[in-house]
Amino acid sequence: MESIKVFAPATVANVVCGFDILGFAVNEPGDELIMEMTSKPGVNIISIEGDEGKLPLDPSKNTVSASVISLLKKLEREDVGLNIKLKKKMPMGSGLGSSSASAVAGLFAANELLGKPLSKMELLPFAMEGEALACGHGHADNVAPALFGGFTLIKSYEPLEVIALPVPKLYCALLYPHVDVPTRDARQIIRSKVLLKDAVIQWGNIAGLISSLYTQDYELLGRCMKDVIIEPIRSILIPEFDRMKEMAMGNGALGFGISGSGPTVFSLFRSPEEAQKSLQEMKKMLATLGIESNIYLSEINEKGPVVC
Amino acid sequence: MESIKVFAPATVANVVCGFDILGFAVNEPGDELIMEMTSKPGVNIISIEGDEGKLPLDPSKNTVSASVISLLKKLEREDVGLNIKLKKKMPMGSGLGSSSASAVAGLFAANELLGKPLSKMELLPFAMEGEALACGHGHADNVAPALFGGFTLIKSYEPLEVIALPVPKLYCALLYPHVDVPTRDARQIIRSKVLLKDAVIQWGNIAGLISSLYTQDYELLGRCMKDVIIEPIRSILIPEFDRMKEMAMGNGALGFGISGSGPTVFSLFRSPEEAQKSLQEMKKMLATLGIESNIYLSEINEKGPVVC
Repeated sequence: MESIKVFAPATVANVVCGFDILGFAVNEPGDELIMEMTSKPGVNIISIEGDEGKLPLDPSKNTVSASVISLLKKLEREDVGLNIKLKKKMPMGSGLGSSSASAVAGLFAANELLGKPLSKMELLPFAMEGEALACGHGHADNVAPALFGGFTLIKSYEPLEVIALPVPKLYCALLYPHVDVPTRDARQIIRSKVLLKDAVIQWGNIAGLISSLYTQDYELLGRCMKDVIIEPIRSILIPEFDRMKEMAMGNGALGFGISGSGPTVFSLFRSPEEAQKSLQEMKKMLATLGIESNIYLSEINEKGPVVC
Repeated sequence: MESIKVFAPATVANVVCGFDILGFAVNEPGDELIMEMTSKPGVNIISIEGDEGKLPLDPSKNTVSASVISLLKKLEREDVGLNIKLKKKMPMGSGLGSSSASAVAGLFAANELLGKPLSKMELLPFAMEGEALACGHGHADNVAPALFGGFTLIKSYEPLEVIALPVPKLYCALLYPHVDVPTRDARQIIRSKVLLKDAVIQWGNIAGLISSLYTQDYELLGRCMKDVIIEPIRSILIPEFDRMKEMAMGNGALGFGISGSGPTVFSLFRSPEEAQKSLQEMKKMLATLGIESNIYLSEINEKGPVVC
């Protein structure tokens, strides 16, 4: 029986000013998945570790298996049997693209086992389907960086067009505070209308951020990491957001913001030492308030999913 | 007596998806200005050609002289005497940045005559003052490209930050239909609130357009030249907008849109022949409706104002 073990990375979506269009992948955390070809047609979830029993084992309801089932159907390979063991090595509902990482791991593994019939770009819609199943919406800003690695721009959804941007040589500090901010709730508190003058500020920052990636002007990148539309609302759901931001910026962060819909916060640094110092300060501060947290420090992931 | 003759270019602001933040300069049309140092302190407008008597000769009310007066004040050089002859070689109130071109010509000429005490970046706020006097608002999306040349991004207004973007090797076709769309009116019909989902589409396109300039992917540039916020409203004020767009796109334009607040329309082409053909078709079509028009064909101006 042929089997494969893969890793797919966690991702930071939105990236402060790039609501619903920007995202990047990190080397840590991420999900591991073992997929085995079997002689009995059908996709099965054999085991899930690290999900605290929260994820469904029913193949039609689980993000990973549902995406893989769609893929096999499209490829007219429903004769194939696949057994999946998922190791969640990252928190769920944390704003780190947990469901995207799992879906991407499953699709990448299946595509590898089948001899790579599809390109990554062709796999993207299937990963988005999985995301829709998990989160109630099919946004690509987590799945695209999880699949392609690096910094990705979702130029448009209709038609779906993803652009790989230059990858900055920076360190990403992630802190996941153990508080509950469901993605659905975080979306619902956003207003459906925004002031045009705020939109103009936002798209000036997005345009500047894209420019900064091409010119490697990381000071400019920092100046563009401002969000006048989403952050003022969503940051209310994150404990001590402003204090953590001050700590990150005080330690030399180029910018600080909410990862996806939170509650994880991220910051970008030139120096891993400064990033680590900032993470320790934030973690300690939250601990004094009785809030546990996970911290991660990583370069930007350039590869997306890999066989391991 | 020392004197200087300068040219400053017309500009296309907004560039479809980049409302208030993007602009580029063209080689044609533009304004010419002759400035002469005199022994009598003060700034005087000696003559204005080509304005049909519309522009004020009062130095405190004229965009050009008012900007130059501010500059001399800042430099503590109110001992200097300057006589100005302005040749408007472009239509006013056309959406081509007429007042910006004049203000930039005046400031550039004065700065040259005084031995270049200020950089172009330092001249920018004075040009914006002139623009505010002419249009009632101090937006930089015409003055920045007129001053720096090329494609410019206004990353932010507070603080003012301008980024020079890579200049695409494309041809710009401009058509100014002789109908009246005052800038103030064109701004007033825009709604102060926009749908967040439309803003997301818009900033995806802006981000993609910035990327396309760095990668010289002009097909992508064309796909990003879409405006779901401003154009649907402002295009109502421009006669036969949709038909002109069809003609431009049918002749191979990468994209088509309103220049500034109109009524001039612009399109970008790879081929000057296709651009010329499209301009002739549009001009002829408007003529059958009794609408006169001016047409211009130019590469993107890379220099901004020059001594001539």
